[in-house]
Amino acid sequence: MSFERENIHRMSGYVSGEQPDDPQTIKLNTNENPYPPTPAVDDVLAGFSRTRLRRYPPPTAIAFREAAARLHGLQPENVIATRGGDELLRLLITTFVDPGQPIGMTDPSYSLYPVLAQIQDCPVVTQPMTPDWQPADDFADRMNAAGVRLTFIVNPHAPSGALMPVGRVDELARDLNSILVLDEAYIDFVDHDYATTPLVREHDNLVILRTLSKGYSLAGLRFGYGLGPASLIEPMLTKTRDSYNLDAISQEVALAALADQAHAKNTWQAVIRDREKLAADLRELGLDSPPSQANFLLVSVPGGLPYKAPEIYQKLKELHILVRYFDLPGLQDRLRISLGTPDENRRLMNAMRSLLD
Amino acid sequence: MSFERENIHRMSGYVSGEQPDDPQTIKLNTNENPYPPTPAVDDVLAGFSRTRLRRYPPPTAIAFREAAARLHGLQPENVIATRGGDELLRLLITTFVDPGQPIGMTDPSYSLYPVLAQIQDCPVVTQPMTPDWQPADDFADRMNAAGVRLTFIVNPHAPSGALMPVGRVDELARDLNSILVLDEAYIDFVDHDYATTPLVREHDNLVILRTLSKGYSLAGLRFGYGLGPASLIEPMLTKTRDSYNLDAISQEVALAALADQAHAKNTWQAVIRDREKLAADLRELGLDSPPSQANFLLVSVPGGLPYKAPEIYQKLKELHILVRYFDLPGLQDRLRISLGTPDENRRLMNAMRSLLD
Repeated sequence: MSFERENIHRMSGYVSGEQPDDPQTIKLNTNENPYPPTPAVDDVLAGFSRTRLRRYPPPTAIAFREAAARLHGLQPENVIATRGGDELLRLLITTFVDPGQPIGMTDPSYSLYPVLAQIQDCPVVTQPMTPDWQPADDFADRMNAAGVRLTFIVNPHAPSGALMPVGRVDELARDLNSILVLDEAYIDFVDHDYATTPLVREHDNLVILRTLSKGYSLAGLRFGYGLGPASLIEPMLTKTRDSYNLDAISQEVALAALADQAHAKNTWQAVIRDREKLAADLRELGLDSPPSQANFLLVSVPGGLPYKAPEIYQKLKELHILVRYFDLPGLQDRLRISLGTPDENRRLMNAMRSLLD
Repeated sequence: MSFERENIHRMSGYVSGEQPDDPQTIKLNTNENPYPPTPAVDDVLAGFSRTRLRRYPPPTAIAFREAAARLHGLQPENVIATRGGDELLRLLITTFVDPGQPIGMTDPSYSLYPVLAQIQDCPVVTQPMTPDWQPADDFADRMNAAGVRLTFIVNPHAPSGALMPVGRVDELARDLNSILVLDEAYIDFVDHDYATTPLVREHDNLVILRTLSKGYSLAGLRFGYGLGPASLIEPMLTKTRDSYNLDAISQEVALAALADQAHAKNTWQAVIRDREKLAADLRELGLDSPPSQANFLLVSVPGGLPYKAPEIYQKLKELHILVRYFDLPGLQDRLRISLGTPDENRRLMNAMRSLLD
């Protein structure tokens, strides 16, 4: 006899990118920041006394929430700190979407969203993106007509890297009947002034997701946060969140990382600087990609090349270079390649040339 | 307009014990271990390089799962590592209980269980315990008759500290039609040989919860684990768990703590040694408590004393001593007092004598 719920029994879990132990592997498959986090992290860890772990941690990570609120010109009640962005995505569904109610998203999108919808036993409503990787003009109408309760938009878009204008975000929040979750996991890599955070004060249905995994080089820490009106943040903070969701060490590390904006910005600038060059180098080999404002490129592998996308993925893997191949409709002729260090990008290009030139 | 789901709107969140910043406060209210964790924790933290945080952590904490499996004579597929025991409790409901299906427990019990049931929109079925704080003889029959899908039993029981015989656990697992979740958060403080873990191999419906919060003095780390048949562990591990639920630092700290069994056992022995004495000292003041196999005592405050239970709680708080008062039916004339260090226990007794003698 199986005890699993029917919807859980039916589903497959989220498949994350490979995480090899091998330190020699050039890992361009899961969008980590290629540069280490601020040295302040080492200071926090070296100075952290084990005796403090005996007691429970601050339950809502109030010090971090205050710092994030200051950074974004908001109040602590507009901030929830979570175990990576993933926890926030789950809490949003748990808190605001009944089983059976539809959840909206573009196609393609972050492949975790449909998995989280399945866990809550919610149908997914999708609409294809425009050729330049934007939500279609009638996206909000479509979602509203389908009775969607919560809409996920990842911006910059994954896996394309395309950015929506701020005005378009504003419009979507206004036009959608549902909650709009704006997943800004990659926002730190935008190459010009860009801020949707003031919109949180304008809309009662907008939650912005941020993570320290990419912009702050802390994928291993599992720390993210949400920004939104108190009416949406408060029930997640006081009701549906696991009590003590964030341990004492990670709260301090996250605070130190957020405080060192200069270090983080240097890593963003380095990624932005190399992005154009890598895109141009790949284009020379016939691998075109849409303009990316994220720390990855979605390259197309056209028909005339010696190998198809999954073959290139496999050949690169044999050369100890990991990129991401999604075996999904619309993505089967593409590869998503994270920006690495200049040396890693160079070694990627050497491998690509050896395969395709 | 409120976006909250109706069941979330109706509910109140879990209220945890107070966590004062003030280091002078004697904290006997949330069952932390009074002794610090193994010094190996400091070594892990001092030796942990920030560069490792750049990448995602091992997704299922495999090194910890292997170590826990060895400790309990099980296989890694019988182990799931979670962010505190709380995450495991949530995953069990998410994975195995449809909204609307009943969840069973004794009354009283750990006050988080009904909160987690409300989040999943599940009714709760309870049965009062016997006068010696055991599930009643017909507990399984009652739960089965009510169509319960998942039953929580905390053993040693909270808030009484009473322990069930292993044979009774075996019986319950056999007789219940539902999954039996045996919450062993306090098991390390049992004063004699006692092991339910072999039962995991005998029953397809038994999951045992363990935590490092109490026995390993790591409440601030948020690390626990579940033991059970692979058929129950696997769907939580691969489908409903947040991907990367445990950060890289806590995985290493937890591994180091589990490895130093000698240190942990010393703290358990110290707590066990002082438990009898504190119970006897309190009894002398008229504050009786049932025999406890946990690191706390549930004392009754009888009618003839100068103060009632909530008044004693308040008076102690003014003296910077925190104990736990539950304003719940059946517990309103009682206080739950965690074991402290010998010095803390002495200061508690001095305060109690000043109030009640």
